[in-house]
Amino acid sequence: MRTKAAVALEAGKPLEIMEVNLEGPKEGEVLVEIKATGICHTDEFTRSGADPEGLFPAILGHEGAGVVVEVGPGVKDLKPGDHVIPLYTAECRECEYCLHPKTNLCQKVRATQGKGVMPDGTSRFSMLDGTPILHYMGCSTFSNYTVLPEISLAKIRQDAPFDKVCYIGCGVTTGIGAVIYTAKAEIGSRAIVFGLGGIGLNVIQGLRLAGADQIVGVDLNDDKKAMATKFGMTDFVNPSKVEGDLVGHLVELTGGGADYTFDATGNVQVMRTALESAHKGWGESIIIGVAPAGAEISTRPFQLVTGRVWRGTAFGGARGRTDVPKIVDWYMDGKIDIDPMITHTMPLEDINKGFDLMHKGESIRSVVVY
Amino acid sequence: MRTKAAVALEAGKPLEIMEVNLEGPKEGEVLVEIKATGICHTDEFTRSGADPEGLFPAILGHEGAGVVVEVGPGVKDLKPGDHVIPLYTAECRECEYCLHPKTNLCQKVRATQGKGVMPDGTSRFSMLDGTPILHYMGCSTFSNYTVLPEISLAKIRQDAPFDKVCYIGCGVTTGIGAVIYTAKAEIGSRAIVFGLGGIGLNVIQGLRLAGADQIVGVDLNDDKKAMATKFGMTDFVNPSKVEGDLVGHLVELTGGGADYTFDATGNVQVMRTALESAHKGWGESIIIGVAPAGAEISTRPFQLVTGRVWRGTAFGGARGRTDVPKIVDWYMDGKIDIDPMITHTMPLEDINKGFDLMHKGESIRSVVVY
Ligand SMILES: NC(=O)c1ccc[n+]([C@@H]2O[C@H](COP(=O)([O-])OP(=O)(O)OC[C@H]3O[C@@H](n4cnc5c(N)ncnc54)[C@H](O)[C@@H]3O)[C@@H](O)[C@H]2O)c1
Ligand SMILES: NC(=O)c1ccc[n+]([C@@H]2O[C@H](COP(=O)([O-])OP(=O)(O)OC[C@H]3O[C@@H](n4cnc5c(N)ncnc54)[C@H](O)[C@@H]3O)[C@@H](O)[C@H]2O)c1
Ligand SMILES: [Zn+2]
Ligand SMILES: [Zn+2]
Ligand SMILES: [Zn+2]
Ligand SMILES: [Zn+2]
Repeated sequence: MRTKAAVALEAGKPLEIMEVNLEGPKEGEVLVEIKATGICHTDEFTRSGADPEGLFPAILGHEGAGVVVEVGPGVKDLKPGDHVIPLYTAECRECEYCLHPKTNLCQKVRATQGKGVMPDGTSRFSMLDGTPILHYMGCSTFSNYTVLPEISLAKIRQDAPFDKVCYIGCGVTTGIGAVIYTAKAEIGSRAIVFGLGGIGLNVIQGLRLAGADQIVGVDLNDDKKAMATKFGMTDFVNPSKVEGDLVGHLVELTGGGADYTFDATGNVQVMRTALESAHKGWGESIIIGVAPAGAEISTRPFQLVTGRVWRGTAFGGARGRTDVPKIVDWYMDGKIDIDPMITHTMPLEDINKGFDLMHKGESIRSVVVY
Repeated sequence: MRTKAAVALEAGKPLEIMEVNLEGPKEGEVLVEIKATGICHTDEFTRSGADPEGLFPAILGHEGAGVVVEVGPGVKDLKPGDHVIPLYTAECRECEYCLHPKTNLCQKVRATQGKGVMPDGTSRFSMLDGTPILHYMGCSTFSNYTVLPEISLAKIRQDAPFDKVCYIGCGVTTGIGAVIYTAKAEIGSRAIVFGLGGIGLNVIQGLRLAGADQIVGVDLNDDKKAMATKFGMTDFVNPSKVEGDLVGHLVELTGGGADYTFDATGNVQVMRTALESAHKGWGESIIIGVAPAGAEISTRPFQLVTGRVWRGTAFGGARGRTDVPKIVDWYMDGKIDIDPMITHTMPLEDINKGFDLMHKGESIRSVVVY
């Protein structure tokens, strides 16, 4: 079949909207009509060429929602008409990782996914002249139709709006999951969130959901304060306005350091500040942000010997097929909010405007609606 | 009263054996006759002047065992004749730290202890001319008699030999505790221990006690292999004999990386190797070693984002009054071994020989017997 897609032809270039060929689903695969997709920093990390492992030409996008159109042989749990969210972190429920209680990093399709192909080693996408186009993060939601392994799809309820819950495909789950699945923050916790963008806001609402007593937000941009307050932030700190040592200021503000701190900036200096403003004895710091290629974090080992813990999280520690449908329920039940974070929507033809808005810092999330 | 002690008069000098004055126990304090004391690297860190926070003149030593001679007013849980192990990490059972489930770092006497004085701000030790001598780590076991707060003493059974269980006052508990209390290693774990000295050997026997399946020991010195094997090591790696990448070699040897890795060297490069040879998704690395002043650890944040956890431990995460008596029981019941690690004993007069043996790497533990 043919489908409309936004194609990243080479690093650093705007995406090009074009018709491409899409082969039908093979063994264990599913054809999905994408109804909406968010534009995430990780797409831009690849599009811009900043990711040294980025491959081209490819169809980016990994934060979508849609409807199953056709299933390949051997597909057991999905049928045409099912509503789904694509998962860049699959959940096969049988690999060593899926069976381990401490991780969500299913490895079943990891190797091929990293190479931009399906598990059989080939791509389903090609140019009209036959040149193969690579998949991206196993999702390629910047195409109106796409093919994924069954284990890379979470089945969700039918009444959830695609143009909102697509955000659960990455940002919402990453932020809320970092609190609930990775930190496992207890009721009454004190926390600090560094970076109040699309991820940080979801960390904040995750903390509110978990019953945190104090939620300090840290951002260089004062404009972030209003929205973060709406999502549950109790204190705001702009580091550029703190006189003296930022760690000292945050430790004082939290009465000795935070139980949990989160980096949602991707800046390695901020990651250090986040660790060091965690409470002596038990504070845990969770890295969510993705750092520039080659950047390193550092601290004195004494910080850890005196009880702080340094962790990271990918996709918020969520097991996609199990947890994503629950997060959709939380949204539908009003336990979490998504609508105010989706500041812009646009047709696929205008997707490059979404990237422009991200660069200007004007959007929290732009969503493409097909 | 007067007591014989080995006094550190200034940084870098050998200890001097002399008579010193010792005031009796004040409110909440206990006078203890030390029967035996180990010599630990931390004593040497201070004696040598390497610790920028070291204070002089002081009576070092923090790995002792002895008998209660006299108790001050208000002492509730100890009486003359009780056998005790001094604790450089107190356990008051009422401060914010003692009441927190995730830490053993009681803060009740921390501030004064760090200044070399008792909780009332003064020292019980002085020169015969009246010049005050500072306490050390709240213990000062290099004195035949010493005074400690009640909360800094673990009461142990009467039949345990002082010249063996003194080692539980630091090294044994630090190593075994790192496995049991900090890592909480599960039965069947795979582990890597870097550094097979007095601490590393105890990590190894802690892992054996916890039912680990694979215990890899890493040391630059091949002579460490025999003893470590006796304590439970299953594989030995000498990094100087590994061709190519050490992390890659260890990941292969452990079938994908270890569930738990431990640094017992104090070298920050080793700490990085330890983190990176932990298993993707769930491997945890625990820093035990004390790094040189100012040294920093570093890695790429990706190591954490893909699921590795970086921790540290002090006194093995043990709550001294609660856990030390249990570890003494484990020794008396034959669950753990101590005797082969105590390679040298000597009278107080020869304590500087103990430091020499440590420098030459000839001893695992030297114990002074009064
Ligand atoms: N681990 C994962 O699974 C995962 C998933 C998605 C995104 N991410 C990463 O999360 C990070 C945040 O993403 P986002 O979409 O929220 O980005 P964003 O640009 O919307 O937000 C980043 C915020 O950080 C603030 N900031 C920048 N430097 C700062 C500093 N030094 N101190 C304080 N605040 C600072 C900015 O003002 C901005 O508000 C990115 O690195 C992204 O790649 C990680
Ligand atoms: N965290 C705590 O509560 C605590 C308590 C006591 C001691 N310590 C620290 O634990 C560390 C170990 O103490 P110890 O008494 O076992 O010391 P040790 O000198 O007896 O043993 C260290 C071992 O590490 C080996 N080693 C050195 N460099 C190495 C390298 N690059 N690679 C591999 N092996 C290497 C040495 O050959 C030696 O066998 C020290 O830093 C000490 O200060 C920490
Ligand atoms: Zn994303
Ligand atoms: Zn799996
Ligand atoms: Zn010690
Ligand atoms: Zn306490």
